[in-house]
Amino acid sequence: MNDGFFQTVGIAGIGLIGGSLAKDLRTFGLTDRIVGWNRTASHAERAVELGLVDDVVASLDALVAASDLIVLAMPVDVLEAQLPHVLSALTPTQIVIDVGSAKQALTHAVAGHPNRRQFVACHPMAGTEKSGPDAAIDNLFRNRFTLIIDPEDSDPQALARVSAMWERVGAVLATLSAEEHDRTAALLSHMPHVLAYALARTIKEAERNQALNARFAGGGLASMTRIAHSPISMWQPIFKQNKQALLAAIDIFSNHLAMFRKAIAEDDAKSLTELMR
Amino acid sequence: MNDGFFQTVGIAGIGLIGGSLAKDLRTFGLTDRIVGWNRTASHAERAVELGLVDDVVASLDALVAASDLIVLAMPVDVLEAQLPHVLSALTPTQIVIDVGSAKQALTHAVAGHPNRRQFVACHPMAGTEKSGPDAAIDNLFRNRFTLIIDPEDSDPQALARVSAMWERVGAVLATLSAEEHDRTAALLSHMPHVLAYALARTIKEAERNQALNARFAGGGLASMTRIAHSPISMWQPIFKQNKQALLAAIDIFSNHLAMFRKAIAEDDAKSLTELMR
Repeated sequence: MNDGFFQTVGIAGIGLIGGSLAKDLRTFGLTDRIVGWNRTASHAERAVELGLVDDVVASLDALVAASDLIVLAMPVDVLEAQLPHVLSALTPTQIVIDVGSAKQALTHAVAGHPNRRQFVACHPMAGTEKSGPDAAIDNLFRNRFTLIIDPEDSDPQALARVSAMWERVGAVLATLSAEEHDRTAALLSHMPHVLAYALARTIKEAERNQALNARFAGGGLASMTRIAHSPISMWQPIFKQNKQALLAAIDIFSNHLAMFRKAIAEDDAKSLTELMR
Repeated sequence: MNDGFFQTVGIAGIGLIGGSLAKDLRTFGLTDRIVGWNRTASHAERAVELGLVDDVVASLDALVAASDLIVLAMPVDVLEAQLPHVLSALTPTQIVIDVGSAKQALTHAVAGHPNRRQFVACHPMAGTEKSGPDAAIDNLFRNRFTLIIDPEDSDPQALARVSAMWERVGAVLATLSAEEHDRTAALLSHMPHVLAYALARTIKEAERNQALNARFAGGGLASMTRIAHSPISMWQPIFKQNKQALLAAIDIFSNHLAMFRKAIAEDDAKSLTELMR
């Protein structure tokens, strides 16, 4: 039954990613029933209002008990803390996935767990700077990569069913080790987010200290700082869990920035052209 | 006659900015005739095909001779070299504007010129990463700031006519000194462009050296590097002309990035939250 269908899907964390997946599961007929749980109760109620889920449950335990597929769409620190307990509560036919942005800490936390093979670590490389159930949109995953991490540590049938589900919502699948994933995510996502936050901070401070009028900004700055509107509560734990790869990525970027600075300072048009190409 | 109307407008450089202004001048009935000149002859021909200009002329001199308002939409190094000659060729009723992104070098180049007051230095804070006549779009300037630089150095009537034209195409006007402008532009535009180029370079090198698969990037990276697709030939002279303010802005950013790096390295959640807020 590798058609990506799950009778009941439980989504823990009904925000941008969890809510968008709920929409697609319904649109593509991939489930009969979606139950939701959210730490912020008002978000859970809103998810029902928006029709993202059929019902909300009072606890993560209740969600796990009610679901064939459990989707953990929570901040990565909560994920690391909760995944071992979730795995311990599973019956043999249940499957768990996460959609978190850092994987080494998470996979270490469940390495050797008796139910480890019922877990498939996933990272859909999709999103916007918005958050919460109202941020959920259709087709968020279409033509975007969903990375499957350490697939050999998952049960082949669980892996096949989860892969089929992602493909049915339009995602393009690729597999990586947790180490490769975290290094890749540091360079392609985590470090760029730090840059966006640092740039937003720079402009805010310049407004205060140098009487800069940031209203004069053109579209370029808005484009560069858009992702700095992403929620802090989601990004801080990612920065923490992927600290080593992130620091390395920041240093690689800083070295490149220093090369640009040097070429500009020395009016070295040849090097600058080379760097900008 | 401060209605923003000019019988014949000559546009030197019919790309994104010059071409978009041509579209708006026609749409809003602000001119009877537009003539164009472009260093790249194929661009000039394309501008006629697209209906951006009525005619092309063979030289900048010919453009100046034919126009009531001369719009110089050229790279800032060309601008600095050509503006003194353009001013020297003017009859008393003609007006010249530029739309360049750096102003101190330009205003120095014409300080004390007998026809200085027929020149109004303008910087519309609008654009996209695209270039050339095909990049021209309607309403590019609407609700965006156009900065008027050192207005006291322009003839009041010339200033009034140029201001009226910008307002008729929907721009919001503000005035700055050349020094204020270049510091502001360094922080809000030039430095962010350097970051975008440096980030794009970082990812490209990581692809080569670390077997990074950049196809896995989500939307955040695309947003951060979009403006790195802007033409090098336009940006290099801006970086050069505004070197001191740009280097200062890069250093201010680097200090902020270093603060983020420190907070991440030390797991200092309190400082990191403060910085990200």
